[in-house]
Amino acid sequence: MTVMVSDSQDVGAALRVAVERLDPTTRLPVAYHLGWCDHIGNPVAANGGKWIRPQLTLLAAHAAGGSTQDAMPGAVAIELVHNFALVHDDLMDQDRMRRHRPTVWSLWGAATAVLAGDALFALAHEVLIESGSPFAIGAMGAIAAATRELVRGQAQDMAFEQRNDVTVAECIAMAEGKTGALIAACGVVGALMSGADSEVIGSLQRYGRHVGVAFQLADDLLGIWGDPRLTGKPVFSDLRAGKKSLPVTWTLCHGGVAGRALADWLMRGERDADGLRAAAALVEAGGGRSWAEAEAERRLATAAAALEHPAIDAHPRCELENFARRLVSRSA
Amino acid sequence: MTVMVSDSQDVGAALRVAVERLDPTTRLPVAYHLGWCDHIGNPVAANGGKWIRPQLTLLAAHAAGGSTQDAMPGAVAIELVHNFALVHDDLMDQDRMRRHRPTVWSLWGAATAVLAGDALFALAHEVLIESGSPFAIGAMGAIAAATRELVRGQAQDMAFEQRNDVTVAECIAMAEGKTGALIAACGVVGALMSGADSEVIGSLQRYGRHVGVAFQLADDLLGIWGDPRLTGKPVFSDLRAGKKSLPVTWTLCHGGVAGRALADWLMRGERDADGLRAAAALVEAGGGRSWAEAEAERRLATAAAALEHPAIDAHPRCELENFARRLVSRSA
Repeated sequence: MTVMVSDSQDVGAALRVAVERLDPTTRLPVAYHLGWCDHIGNPVAANGGKWIRPQLTLLAAHAAGGSTQDAMPGAVAIELVHNFALVHDDLMDQDRMRRHRPTVWSLWGAATAVLAGDALFALAHEVLIESGSPFAIGAMGAIAAATRELVRGQAQDMAFEQRNDVTVAECIAMAEGKTGALIAACGVVGALMSGADSEVIGSLQRYGRHVGVAFQLADDLLGIWGDPRLTGKPVFSDLRAGKKSLPVTWTLCHGGVAGRALADWLMRGERDADGLRAAAALVEAGGGRSWAEAEAERRLATAAAALEHPAIDAHPRCELENFARRLVSRSA
Repeated sequence: MTVMVSDSQDVGAALRVAVERLDPTTRLPVAYHLGWCDHIGNPVAANGGKWIRPQLTLLAAHAAGGSTQDAMPGAVAIELVHNFALVHDDLMDQDRMRRHRPTVWSLWGAATAVLAGDALFALAHEVLIESGSPFAIGAMGAIAAATRELVRGQAQDMAFEQRNDVTVAECIAMAEGKTGALIAACGVVGALMSGADSEVIGSLQRYGRHVGVAFQLADDLLGIWGDPRLTGKPVFSDLRAGKKSLPVTWTLCHGGVAGRALADWLMRGERDADGLRAAAALVEAGGGRSWAEAEAERRLATAAAALEHPAIDAHPRCELENFARRLVSRSA
């Protein structure tokens, strides 16, 4: 079974029903963030994200023998949690742009961003609670644990900006929290809400965790070399912020002369255009770019291998493999 | 049955087990906020709050024929949600002191406060999910709905600071969200986890909602006339912030000459010591203080009346009445 256009429409409809419950003051920034309206509430069709996590949740359900209907409340809840994290992360990282538009905190201030995120998190639970699914509580457990991992990853990410001795292993552990945990939760929730056994759930969780790290690697590459017209963020945005992203960390640890030059540049704190271009060239010369590309490939292969379980049919397995590859090829 | 000292110890122990799961970076500000350690992690026995909500949840359970054990996971989850809201509210309101100590955001910055709050919210769900209670999902539903109300109340509270035409009814609706909803959830969760029927749950919810508003009235009075040595906040803190608290709003709407003078003072934005004392005197002269005291009494009576249900025994009802009265008499 394939995730159909109509499934996406259902995700969108369910998100709107959930957000409709919010008080008007909180609903506006939430609806704006989700791409449904401008900052004064006029309807627009802006980019509200690619719904990667709901799609993955539904694909995981199909792989586990379940239906779209079984897993839809989980898919919607995870998308709400993802957006809760984005709204809070943009504030914490002081990122002014997301999806080509000003972020919630940059338009309405910190307090509104805190509240909008809190509201999205509360809605995620309400969606699952009211689903009537016998697996709702298990799904909420997976989401709550993933949220804790997400907090850990974000805390590490921020702490790493103050350190200059971050190892590649620490950085991967951070990515497993910040990105891997919620994508792994898509696998768990999709399988769990389909009534799958713990082996199948474990397979889809491993798949998700590796896909999450591959996705973070791709995202880090975009954060350096991505086209601002496609990413919606300024060019070199992660370098400008001094982020210890995976390719940067690899270069610092294993990039020899280029790595030491990159460390010097980070310490100096100069962020002019020439310096940013030179820093990106150092990540490339030090091997960080090619390592990140190769590591993403290895993660995709490990993710695919995790799906080799007799209870997972060939067709949904193939779809999950394709989906992971499309996610990561954004970096091409 | 009375809420015993040993119940409080159980609440404390369960909170510690929950917080132990957090990654060390997030655990420190959370443990600090809860009064268990100083800002570098040395154990202290600071004021971590009065655990009003867990106590109320356990009393509600007893009133509904349940036991401490039935309702303990709900009591702990509500205390975690309450602290999630405090950490985020302190940031949003830019309050630097809480319980006689610097607030999380003022020590570690906004990002840490956002994350610490998010982590507390996620933990609340984990505690309920892992309780194994057949009523966990219902309790989570009550908590998620209360959180949405809490967000609404906080959003209104902040919006009111920009307005000078807030009505008393709007201000009470705000208090019902910001304070009443979670206290009402204590009643619901305590009763629900004891397997009570919907009538008893409804009685305890109404009790909680009115107690919540009475509590907010008492808190607003403390925010003007409270002794800083007892409140842990600077004298006149709410007046200084220009907060449209309930006694202030009542005075602005119904305080005649004193109300108009108070409105002028708020508009001028002067916050010197003489001005603050004069403003407090205007709230008193305009009747805001006595109205708030009388309204708190009316709410306590309505709360007590809500408990008159044949399934609620006289003794736990008496205890709930006493508890509510002790809460509100903090303002004396």
